[in-house]
Amino acid sequence: MSHSWDHLLLDATLATFAGDAPYGLVRHGAIALHEGRISWVGPQGALPDDAERRAARVDHLDGALVTPGLIDCHTHLVFGGDRAHEFDLRLNGASYEEIARAGGGIVSTVKATREASEDALFAQTLPRAHALLADGVTTVEIKSGYGLDLETERRMLRVARRIGKALGLTVRTTFLGLHALPPEYRDDREAYVALVCDEMLPALASEGLVDAIDAFCENIGFTPDETRRVFDRATQLGLPVKLHAEQLSDLDGAALVASYRGLSADHLEHLSDSGIRAMASAGTVAVLLPGAFYALRETKLPPIAGLREHRVPMAVATDCNPGTSPLLSLRLAAGMACTLFRLTPEEALRGVTVNAAKALGFTDRGTLAAGQRADLSVWNVREPAELCYWIGGSHVLRDIFLGGELLSPES
Amino acid sequence: MSHSWDHLLLDATLATFAGDAPYGLVRHGAIALHEGRISWVGPQGALPDDAERRAARVDHLDGALVTPGLIDCHTHLVFGGDRAHEFDLRLNGASYEEIARAGGGIVSTVKATREASEDALFAQTLPRAHALLADGVTTVEIKSGYGLDLETERRMLRVARRIGKALGLTVRTTFLGLHALPPEYRDDREAYVALVCDEMLPALASEGLVDAIDAFCENIGFTPDETRRVFDRATQLGLPVKLHAEQLSDLDGAALVASYRGLSADHLEHLSDSGIRAMASAGTVAVLLPGAFYALRETKLPPIAGLREHRVPMAVATDCNPGTSPLLSLRLAAGMACTLFRLTPEEALRGVTVNAAKALGFTDRGTLAAGQRADLSVWNVREPAELCYWIGGSHVLRDIFLGGELLSPES
Ligand SMILES: [Zn+2]
Ligand SMILES: [Zn+2]
Repeated sequence: MSHSWDHLLLDATLATFAGDAPYGLVRHGAIALHEGRISWVGPQGALPDDAERRAARVDHLDGALVTPGLIDCHTHLVFGGDRAHEFDLRLNGASYEEIARAGGGIVSTVKATREASEDALFAQTLPRAHALLADGVTTVEIKSGYGLDLETERRMLRVARRIGKALGLTVRTTFLGLHALPPEYRDDREAYVALVCDEMLPALASEGLVDAIDAFCENIGFTPDETRRVFDRATQLGLPVKLHAEQLSDLDGAALVASYRGLSADHLEHLSDSGIRAMASAGTVAVLLPGAFYALRETKLPPIAGLREHRVPMAVATDCNPGTSPLLSLRLAAGMACTLFRLTPEEALRGVTVNAAKALGFTDRGTLAAGQRADLSVWNVREPAELCYWIGGSHVLRDIFLGGELLSPES
Repeated sequence: MSHSWDHLLLDATLATFAGDAPYGLVRHGAIALHEGRISWVGPQGALPDDAERRAARVDHLDGALVTPGLIDCHTHLVFGGDRAHEFDLRLNGASYEEIARAGGGIVSTVKATREASEDALFAQTLPRAHALLADGVTTVEIKSGYGLDLETERRMLRVARRIGKALGLTVRTTFLGLHALPPEYRDDREAYVALVCDEMLPALASEGLVDAIDAFCENIGFTPDETRRVFDRATQLGLPVKLHAEQLSDLDGAALVASYRGLSADHLEHLSDSGIRAMASAGTVAVLLPGAFYALRETKLPPIAGLREHRVPMAVATDCNPGTSPLLSLRLAAGMACTLFRLTPEEALRGVTVNAAKALGFTDRGTLAAGQRADLSVWNVREPAELCYWIGGSHVLRDIFLGGELLSPES
């Protein structure tokens, strides 16, 4: 007989994140998958009588929690080398100057990335992407920004695309040419900004390598005016924008990106009230990055109460990068958002599902609802809060579905 | 032909933690295992000419890092239930009183542990122990202390022993009868202390279930006099002691446990100079527990500079427990010791190897040296500092050897 469903999961605890009920929780839930989409989801008692016969495969989950596949909406996953030696030097008392002299800092990552072949970059990135997947991530954003020249930025974005194909993850690429001023342009930042806006971005966009545009708007990064320049070019090309904003100081970056109806403003420890209001009216998502806050031992918290009050959607991401957040677990980022930023577990988990989807412009994932893409994470726990509560623990993830395909996390 | 070695590992980066050189590092190292012990370790160039023929199996590690199997010297791994709901309530603004009324706090863990059968406790603990193993741990200390009656404390300790047998881990059991006052003794603490010292401890020790004795010496726990009482009984029984000391206040617990030549004093955020000196002269190890510091959002740091100055050996452990440190990665604990306590990566890694061995009274593990037990962790990194640098990442561990037996981490 022909089946109307490829796969039916029974006896599940469903955290759907659809609707406003806590976690969108459905106990004794069922979920049916067909041709890569969710066909049916709800209380098991509401299933049609012949449900089990309709499905080619039926699994009983014995109360295990099912969530939408997690979405890591801010990473710098592709890079050459690492900065463990710098970490070691700093903890041994080296000053920033000594570390710079020893070749540390972002410059060292740019150097290592430029020197790595595409295959070498891919080989270094793959285990990191796999680590995210093995902890429940099914969609990941990956930024460029350690090449700072056309050839290396292209290589980074190509590697990002290859990672998605290799693992079955959905990858969203972001061009972050305005990440840092490359050493060869130290005395001519205007020329570098022009290169990014007028050559690199149009070329990479025309090659289909760019899903969105980001910039590092900061006193030690790029100015609001420089940011506007790349955003204007993105707008011409029809590409959405997002921004590293208000991490170390308040340059009104959040309002700037909101004025472009940007997808997200990210970091936000120094976000002002007017920035919050601008984000709220533009529908720009606040992406919180507690891994960098933790690793840098920051003390200024992002204005969570204000974001709540103005109903700005909050997402949480790893910011995985070699310098300030070598964090390879989105679940741990969600836990840190609770412990360090005092998000509730529900807020943190909406932040790695429905709001993370919004931060990437997706409408087909991030919730468990009929019609959504069948990206699911199945967990060895029964309560959603446990995903934030346990710190580490490779046993927490049980199974993952990527577009309806069941994957064991070790595979 | 007969072989003199069971297994020879070549092309390894060895962090031996033997001697005073940083990490005891040997690049291009080799290590030979035989009958569960390390037979030979050193620079590959110093191997005898016929080394490869001597070995039944030879593996080339291509520069991968090998460390002693990690040792988690302070855990409360056996417990019933979890406290994720309480975590959720607290982040939703519930007061401690409301949480207590909702059945939270340690009392809830005692209740859940008392209600769990031995098999149920074993089944709940096994994945936690496996998570530690899957991140490089080969020896783990497990405390009782959620039973607070003879039968349940016995069940916890039996489960701890079974965990070791099931996974091939070495388990050291610790009787922690003086963990909390059970509800039924709320009005007669003297009677409970007498029960612990005069009935529970002798009975459990006679059954071979107790490798060491611990107590929670704190304003909200047990007094120094009560602690002395259980330590005196331990001494009569020939059992070593250790102490939860100076976590929330300074009761001179470190000096107390040092006066018994105790194995370790643990937590120590409020440790005084005189406590440091007492530990230094007794050889008592300082066990640092950054997971609890993190989860409780403490701000007072343990006196690392003083411990260094007086050359008190520092260990690092997960303190895995459901209330204040649901931490399931010792590698992450080591990273937290760097980021939060400013230990150097070398100190943190000595803290989960050689000094953790000392904290448990072991002389046969914790370093890579001839004659030591062949418990090894093989890592997908080349620099020891990377073990502290990466936050999360299930891909970091590559292989584990338990008494010479090679184990894949997923098995
Ligand atoms: Zn970033
Ligand atoms: Zn403890």
